[in-house]
Formats: sequence, C-alpha cells, structure tokens
Amino acid sequence: MKKISVVRNILEANERISEQNRALFNEKGLFVINLMSSPGAGKTTLLERTIENLKGEVRVGVIEGDVQSSRDAERIAAHDVQVVQINTGGACHLDGNMIRDTFDSMDFDNMDLLIVENVGNLVCPAEFKVGEDVKVMILSVTEGEDKPSKYPLMFHESSVLLVNKTDLLPYLDTDLEEIHTESLKVNPELTIFDVSCKTGEGLEGWFDWLRTRVSR
Amino acid sequence: MKKISVVRNILEANERISEQNRALFNEKGLFVINLMSSPGAGKTTLLERTIENLKGEVRVGVIEGDVQSSRDAERIAAHDVQVVQINTGGACHLDGNMIRDTFDSMDFDNMDLLIVENVGNLVCPAEFKVGEDVKVMILSVTEGEDKPSKYPLMFHESSVLLVNKTDLLPYLDTDLEEIHTESLKVNPELTIFDVSCKTGEGLEGWFDWLRTRVSR
Repeated sequence: MKKISVVRNILEANERISEQNRALFNEKGLFVINLMSSPGAGKTTLLERTIENLKGEVRVGVIEGDVQSSRDAERIAAHDVQVVQINTGGACHLDGNMIRDTFDSMDFDNMDLLIVENVGNLVCPAEFKVGEDVKVMILSVTEGEDKPSKYPLMFHESSVLLVNKTDLLPYLDTDLEEIHTESLKVNPELTIFDVSCKTGEGLEGWFDWLRTRVSR
Repeated sequence: MKKISVVRNILEANERISEQNRALFNEKGLFVINLMSSPGAGKTTLLERTIENLKGEVRVGVIEGDVQSSRDAERIAAHDVQVVQINTGGACHLDGNMIRDTFDSMDFDNMDLLIVENVGNLVCPAEFKVGEDVKVMILSVTEGEDKPSKYPLMFHESSVLLVNKTDLLPYLDTDLEEIHTESLKVNPELTIFDVSCKTGEGLEGWFDWLRTRVSR
C-alpha cells in the first residue's frame, strides 16, 4: 500500500507541473504532441518525414527523450529545426519536470508545433503527461495484433495511432485488420493511419491531420 | 533526492526477496532464465520453439508476465507444460514478490528449467531481479542498430542476446554486423545467436546452450 501511495503522489505532482507546461504552450500558441511507441517502431523516422513535409509551412520543434545517447537529436538536428535531447538516466519515461528543464534552450516564439519524442516504451510513458495537447502512438506491424489487449493504457490514452512499417506486411503473418479491430476495442475514438515511414505510403493523411490542428 | 531514495529502497527490498527465490530454485535444482525484450520481439514464439525442441528431455515451466491479458499463458499452455500468468496491472516489469506469489501454483519438483517471460519493455525489467540464474534478451532486427547505445542496461545485464527475425533482413536496411558490434561494445561477454523464431533458422545454437546448463 505504501508503494502505491508513493506512486500516486508522484503522478499527482507530475500532473500539476504538466498543467503549468501546458498553460505556457497555450500562451505561445503551440500545438504539442507526446509521441510514444515501443523501441524501434519508427518515431524518429516519422519525425524526419513530418519535418520535411511541413517545411516552410509549420515551424517544428522537437524534444528527444532517451535513456541514454544523443543519436536521435543528431538525426533531427540535421533537418535544421530546434531540437533538445533529454537523457533520462535510468528513467523509462519523460515527465513534466524534464520537459520544463528544456524551456531555457527553446525559442517557443518561433515554433508552431512541438513534438516530444518519448522514451521507447509501451507502458510507462502513457501514465505521465508532459503538457501535451494530444498523445500520438506508433505501432509497428512487426509487433503483432495482441499489443492493444496487452498494453491497453497507451492505446486508450492516444488520440492517433500510426500503424507503421506496412511495407513489411507481405513478409509477415500480421493481420492489419485485426490490429485495427483490437485497437478500436480498447479506444473507439482512435484515429488510425496505416503508414510506411520508409516508403512514405499513407503519410498524407497524417500530415493533413496535423495541418488542421496547427495554427500559425 | 527523495524520489531517488524511494527507488533505491524498492530495489534493495527486491534484491532480498529475489535472493530468497533463487535459494529455493537452487535447492530444487532448477535453472532459471529471466527473458526480456521490447514488445513483439518474439519472446513467446521463442518459448514455444524451445519447449517443443526440448520435449521429453527437459521439463520446462513458464511464468508469463504481462500488464494485462492471459494470451501468452494460453499460447504456452497449449504446449502442455506448467504455466502461470502474472498480470502486473500498471507495472512495467516483474519483481521478486510477483514471482514468489506464483510458488503455490507451481510444482518445482517436476521441472528442470523455469523461464520467466518478463513484460515487453527494454528499460525497467533489467533493473529488477526475480531470482534468475541468467538474463536472456531478444532484439528484433526490425528495431535497428542503435538500441544497445540507447538502452545499455539490458544489454549489459544479459548473458545471452538472441537477434530475432533474421528472415526479415532482406527487406530492411538493418546492418546485422552493426547490431553485433554495438551490443559487444556495451557488453563484451554477451553470447549472441542470430535466429529466426519463425523459420527456426539459427535456433540450434540456443538449444545447445540451454542443454549444457540444465541438469536433470
């Protein structure tokens, strides 16, 4: 019971800080996405595609979360946008405090869309708000159809599900329709896009979804 | 600082309980594996292959860890071995206590090898012992070459790395050699097997590794 109340206190403290973050983002007119997935599902590649597609139209900023290394921030920096890397040390998710610590390094007045790439993890990131408007998640088709029933919270909390790596479907036993059905069972309000971040197929729907939400 | 000391206390308490678990396992002559990976990397399929291969030779038992659902336990039960499902609720990893809670449902006197399938997560499970002899991890080639540098603890703590889904290599840009190099940078003592749990390719080395460690 003690362990549970400790966890609850941490979550409540995080909620407060995230509300403050969100108030600041609103004031700056920023649309903020908390992007989550398993390791290697394609978060950084989606970001690269998105930045390139919206170039000249939407000013994108990125906060990269990783347990260790700055590889992702380096990939994003090559696309000439604002980017900050957070290394969580041992922590398996980002929280409101970590995001607040990046504020001094960010110029929010020259940004329309902030995407926070969370630590690759299908469990804990869904529990910790960072100040986002919406949560967006990626599932790779290589992960199988049983993930919504096994990791329901992230599917439940997300507004958008991108089902990625559809180019691999011919070589897998994965049933794409079943991924849809299982996901919608957990969260009937999910907007789902089937995409291949490698070939670019299916990404137009996602870009349009973003455009209608980002005001400049 | 307060948060850190709470975490440390939890880890120390877990260490104690896991030592007790391990003492019992030793007494029963069991070899115990803590099996870890990202969601969908192939843990359950590896288990199914392993059980079938060792049938009549090694008596296998399985503890299945998932946030929710009993899908994996049902898959394993179909192979006619002892299996218990743990649902962690929100928790993103198994711990010593959860394993101890299964003891009443297990007949360790009729078991040679116990495999604990952890929650699909590349971060936290590596921090929490459950009483295992060794940690074994799976990385799917679809996850990319950067995972050892981004999630070093699990690679560091594991004795064996199974690089799975090699059947997909022709359709990916993944560099298998680089996965090896990056993994060995983090842990030079790793034993690495390249396998396809789907086709069965490469699994003989893994089965032999197991055979030499399980005494009956």
